[in-house]
Amino acid sequence: MDNSAVIADSSPADVESCCRAAAAATAELADLAAWPLKRRAGLLRSIAEVLDAHTAELAGLADEETSLGSGRLTGEVGRTTWQLRLLADVIEDGGFAEIIIDHALAAEGARARPDLRRMLVPIGPVAVYAAANFPFAFSVAGGDTAAALAAGCPVVVKAHPGHPRTSQRTADLVQQACRDAGAPVGTFALVQGFEAGRRLVTDPRIRAAAFTGSQRGGRALFNLAVSRPDPIPFYGELGSINPVFVTAAAVTARGPEIAAGFVASVTLGNGQFCTKPGLLFLPAGHGLDDALATAISSVPPAPMLTPEISDGFSSGTRDIAAIGAVRVLGAAEGPAAPRLYVTTAADVAQHSRLAEECFGPSSVVAEYRYDEELVEAAGAVPGSLAAAIHAEPDDEKLVRALLASLQSRAGRIIWNGWPTGVAVTWAMHHGGPWPATTASIHTSVGPTAIRRFLVPVTFQDVPADLLPDVLQDANPVGLRRRVDGK
Amino acid sequence: MDNSAVIADSSPADVESCCRAAAAATAELADLAAWPLKRRAGLLRSIAEVLDAHTAELAGLADEETSLGSGRLTGEVGRTTWQLRLLADVIEDGGFAEIIIDHALAAEGARARPDLRRMLVPIGPVAVYAAANFPFAFSVAGGDTAAALAAGCPVVVKAHPGHPRTSQRTADLVQQACRDAGAPVGTFALVQGFEAGRRLVTDPRIRAAAFTGSQRGGRALFNLAVSRPDPIPFYGELGSINPVFVTAAAVTARGPEIAAGFVASVTLGNGQFCTKPGLLFLPAGHGLDDALATAISSVPPAPMLTPEISDGFSSGTRDIAAIGAVRVLGAAEGPAAPRLYVTTAADVAQHSRLAEECFGPSSVVAEYRYDEELVEAAGAVPGSLAAAIHAEPDDEKLVRALLASLQSRAGRIIWNGWPTGVAVTWAMHHGGPWPATTASIHTSVGPTAIRRFLVPVTFQDVPADLLPDVLQDANPVGLRRRVDGK
Repeated sequence: MDNSAVIADSSPADVESCCRAAAAATAELADLAAWPLKRRAGLLRSIAEVLDAHTAELAGLADEETSLGSGRLTGEVGRTTWQLRLLADVIEDGGFAEIIIDHALAAEGARARPDLRRMLVPIGPVAVYAAANFPFAFSVAGGDTAAALAAGCPVVVKAHPGHPRTSQRTADLVQQACRDAGAPVGTFALVQGFEAGRRLVTDPRIRAAAFTGSQRGGRALFNLAVSRPDPIPFYGELGSINPVFVTAAAVTARGPEIAAGFVASVTLGNGQFCTKPGLLFLPAGHGLDDALATAISSVPPAPMLTPEISDGFSSGTRDIAAIGAVRVLGAAEGPAAPRLYVTTAADVAQHSRLAEECFGPSSVVAEYRYDEELVEAAGAVPGSLAAAIHAEPDDEKLVRALLASLQSRAGRIIWNGWPTGVAVTWAMHHGGPWPATTASIHTSVGPTAIRRFLVPVTFQDVPADLLPDVLQDANPVGLRRRVDGK
Repeated sequence: MDNSAVIADSSPADVESCCRAAAAATAELADLAAWPLKRRAGLLRSIAEVLDAHTAELAGLADEETSLGSGRLTGEVGRTTWQLRLLADVIEDGGFAEIIIDHALAAEGARARPDLRRMLVPIGPVAVYAAANFPFAFSVAGGDTAAALAAGCPVVVKAHPGHPRTSQRTADLVQQACRDAGAPVGTFALVQGFEAGRRLVTDPRIRAAAFTGSQRGGRALFNLAVSRPDPIPFYGELGSINPVFVTAAAVTARGPEIAAGFVASVTLGNGQFCTKPGLLFLPAGHGLDDALATAISSVPPAPMLTPEISDGFSSGTRDIAAIGAVRVLGAAEGPAAPRLYVTTAADVAQHSRLAEECFGPSSVVAEYRYDEELVEAAGAVPGSLAAAIHAEPDDEKLVRALLASLQSRAGRIIWNGWPTGVAVTWAMHHGGPWPATTASIHTSVGPTAIRRFLVPVTFQDVPADLLPDVLQDANPVGLRRRVDGK
């Protein structure tokens, strides 16, 4: 079905009107921002409630558009509402506001200071670009939207063309919840279509943008964001290779288990996860060819999310197969058949394409000859959302060398596990150096994702009755604050 | 004196070698980062000590190059070493690492989770572009350098051409302190020259850049940073108009005091501060013309920092004077003579040049007719580092409207005071929306400036003995941490 025929693209006037309303909501956002924290948290919980109440309908719609299956999609609605509720907790916790109060001092050492009170406030209207592969959790009411609303920012979402009706229905429900909660008109809107997406990021009223998708699409929007007369932050989560490093001792201890786990992680969601392990380093002579071949061949081909993604997988695998020294495990035929390419670490070092994301059910197995080559490889992999190490207690020296390298190359380092599966919890970091993201100091998952949409403001010598209540000495809301350096 | 003749520009090979050494220090930076926090703090304190010990020599050198006067410059060395020591305290405090620990849960609601431990780690080598107007506090060993070193990042400073010998001498002292503290070679370096500055921000080993200077220069470097194959964060502090809003009641209560305070703030440091108030809104019929004219005429012209800044001031004031409805108070002649331009709020709304920074001892006085016009003006001023309100208790309604607008337009809001004077303390925020900075969510002054140079990393299921000690359950360093959401 051609989804684009069902829902029309937003016109320039539509985009204009959403942004105008968002800006008006921001002026009123003084309201939203000044809302008692409990009320803002309540808005997020209301959105979660209305989505939960429509889980079956939403999952059904999304299955028609994405073929991801109703089990997975039902679970994803739950993950999405979990995220909204977690962000509601984050608001009430109040730590996100990073409140710091320094009382005036006539002289501190040689330094006098006025009364200074700092807190984080909303950055203004935020554009959110939804992802193809998570029609709920990284889409209309997904993590970026939850974080921006929690921060007190109006949101204009650009729907992904892979699931326009799901997006529209979700947006209708979110808007209903906003209305019911008494949030200003313009707090939330949805636009559809490629051109609307370009207009959105260049609209002068939009103050930040968040994106989950391909490196090419993300880079194009990033370039627009930073080329504005007034550049805005663009938080893009793009492609990631998510390398896995396996020591010889780990192969000896549990080779078959590693082979099975790897294939399961590669093919989860048909390989269409940003955390798919795209590169597995195994010691030469690992003896796991049969186990890998059996495992990958046993995974049936499944439809891909969109024709564009399917085309991208075909051309990506063609590029990889064209590189000389590559063996194929699994069915090399069929456009979406899962497969593994076996090569050497030396070839990966030589052919950068082998260490670039190929979105879909394939991965590259790279054989290394000695530990130093594995450490070198860890020092050369592109920036990733995640990296994993499979090792045994005796590998300590090797593991420490890998950890030292990976710490500056991946946002998350996993021990004896796999990169897929991103828990939505306080300590999660879902980010990493380019090309994993356009902004390595931030996460797009978890409570700390809210920081992307907040700017500090410091009040100097402002009388107590004019200060936001959270900055008053009495601390009426009872938030955690740093006072006079403590 | 032509300073550029004294110190040669760095060659491409020099830049290359500094960046290579910085990258090597980063690999070793594992070392610097893993240093016990007390040792890293010790490095900053050693730098402060060696600079303090050479205060007279440094201030003398800088006075030869900048004519800022030895009193001001001696004080500025003190401010610089204060900053270094404050950042040393910040390291030991440990809160900067934003440590979050979530223990594994079999199922939390519907959500199982692995063991996840997040902390912030150094982003890698940082390029720092020194400012003309603060040869110490925003230069070689200034706030950006202190924050980057505190974060555990090697630093390559690009000297400002206005004070090359001061920069070189400061760099020599910093390097000496680094050596004495046993920091890796490459922890700190200095380069000189325009071309070296361009090379630096595009060097693949540089992971972030910080800049204090003009909008034109900052934008050019920002464009280079974001056009890299792997874009890096560029933290530029550029031009700022720092508007001041005065109510009619405030004029009645203390008009002459406001006139005198304004002129003092405008001409402090010969108007060469990024926080100079460039726009003063006064109610029409304020009757302060004489007070303003007398005050501004009593400030003698002083030499400007560099010929380029002097030229910029001449052309900026020429542009402003060329706008029709502008009266001049003070000496309109002499290239650097302090002056005020009086116009109307309506003209400011119409001619954007009147609301753009003109670096030097001039400012624009804009007369408004009624309170609504003042509120409108507050909603239209460009992003600024600071804004000030002068008002009386009866102005509450007007003040609340101004505060609501200014909160999203200025990084700091001052009550009955002036924007100049930036206390280096925990609650300070020195930032703001474009064009005040290229990155409104960050500050370049104070402890929270360290966040610009840190990236999160999360360890998943990593055994305790392989974790950084600060992430271990035992919390051997005793840092503040968020554990299981609390």
